[in-house]
Amino acid sequence: MKKPVGRTGALVMLGLIVFGASARAEDSPAVEAMHLGEGEGRIVDPELAVPSENYREEWVFLGAFSVLADEPEEGAKEMHAVYAEQEAVRAYLDAGSFPDGAKIVKDVFETETAYLTTGTASYARELAGRFVMVKDSQNTKADQSPLWGHGWGWAFYEGTETRHTITTDYESDCLGCHQPAQETDYLYTQGYPLLAR
Amino acid sequence: MKKPVGRTGALVMLGLIVFGASARAEDSPAVEAMHLGEGEGRIVDPELAVPSENYREEWVFLGAFSVLADEPEEGAKEMHAVYAEQEAVRAYLDAGSFPDGAKIVKDVFETETAYLTTGTASYARELAGRFVMVKDSQNTKADQSPLWGHGWGWAFYEGTETRHTITTDYESDCLGCHQPAQETDYLYTQGYPLLAR
Repeated sequence: MKKPVGRTGALVMLGLIVFGASARAEDSPAVEAMHLGEGEGRIVDPELAVPSENYREEWVFLGAFSVLADEPEEGAKEMHAVYAEQEAVRAYLDAGSFPDGAKIVKDVFETETAYLTTGTASYARELAGRFVMVKDSQNTKADQSPLWGHGWGWAFYEGTETRHTITTDYESDCLGCHQPAQETDYLYTQGYPLLAR
Repeated sequence: MKKPVGRTGALVMLGLIVFGASARAEDSPAVEAMHLGEGEGRIVDPELAVPSENYREEWVFLGAFSVLADEPEEGAKEMHAVYAEQEAVRAYLDAGSFPDGAKIVKDVFETETAYLTTGTASYARELAGRFVMVKDSQNTKADQSPLWGHGWGWAFYEGTETRHTITTDYESDCLGCHQPAQETDYLYTQGYPLLAR
C-alpha cells in the first residue's frame, strides 16, 4: 500500500515499530512510513547517527535477539544484532557500565525462515531499521533534546537511513521497551554473553 | 540424569545434537554426553580446534540463526552465532568463496525467552557447543582424516570444550545438515548479510 500518511499517522506507526510490529517487507509499518518525504520533520543529531564506519566488520558483536512471529510456527519474524566498539566493551568489562560517549547499534532485520534438518531456522534478510544509543551518564544533553535522558541518547532509523531519525521523543518512543531493563542501565545485557564473562 | 553412557550411546547422542535436539541444559543430549570421560576416544585435530584467540571480540560476526522450540510459542530453543576472520571475509567478498585455511566458528547457545513489550524475544545463554569448519578446497586432507572432505574440515565441540571433538566422521555427522547448502559451498550464506553486500 502506498497511501500517503500524515504526521499523525507517522507517529502512530513509530509506536508500532518501537513496540514490535511485524517486520515483513510487504506490510510493515516501517516500510509504509518510508513513503513520507525523506527526512520530513525529522531530527538529525550527528552524535546519534548510525556509524559511518563499517561497524559490522569493525565493531564487536554483543548478541542477537530473535522475536517470535505472530504465528509462532513460522519461526522468528525479526532478528536483532547488537554491536559496540571494542574499547567500550573493554571498559564495560572493567567498570561494569559503558563509558560516556559509547555508542551501541542494534540492527533490526526482517527474517526468512527455512525448515531445515536442524529445525525451523530463522535468519536475517533485509534491514528493517537500526536503533542507536549513546551513553550520557550525567544527562548533559537531557535539557537540550527530546532524544536524550535516562543516561542515554536514543534514536531509531528506518531501513538504511543513517541520519534522519523517526524518534521524536525517547520517553514515549523508546522507554516503553527499555524500562523493564532499568536495573541493567536500560540494556538487555542478559542477551550479551560477552559482557557476562 | 547422570547415568553412564557407552560409546554407542555417545554416537547416538552425537546424531541427536547434530540433527537439532533440544538444547535445554537439564535434559539435552549435549550435556548428558559430557559425562563420558573427557576426551575419551575423541579426535584431536589442532587445525580444527576452537580458536585460542577471543574470536568473539576479534573476529567478524557473520550472522545468527534462531532455531524454533519444539513448542513454538516458547520462542527459540537455540541461538547460533557465526564468526570468521576479517581477512577471510574480505577474501570472500573479493572472490566469492573462502580461501583455503579460513576457519568458521559457530557458537550454539541454549536460550532464554522473555515476553517483552517488543514480543517474545529469545537470546543466548549457556554455550551448548561449537561447530568449526576449515576450508580445504583441494581436499588435501580427505584421505588422511574422517573429519575432512567436500572441501572442508568439520568438527563439533560440546560445551566449552575446545580440542576434543565428538565428531568422528563428517559425512555421517555433519553433511546431513549441510548437504542442502551444497550450492553455496555447504554454508548457509543466505543468513550472512555481510557476505551479500
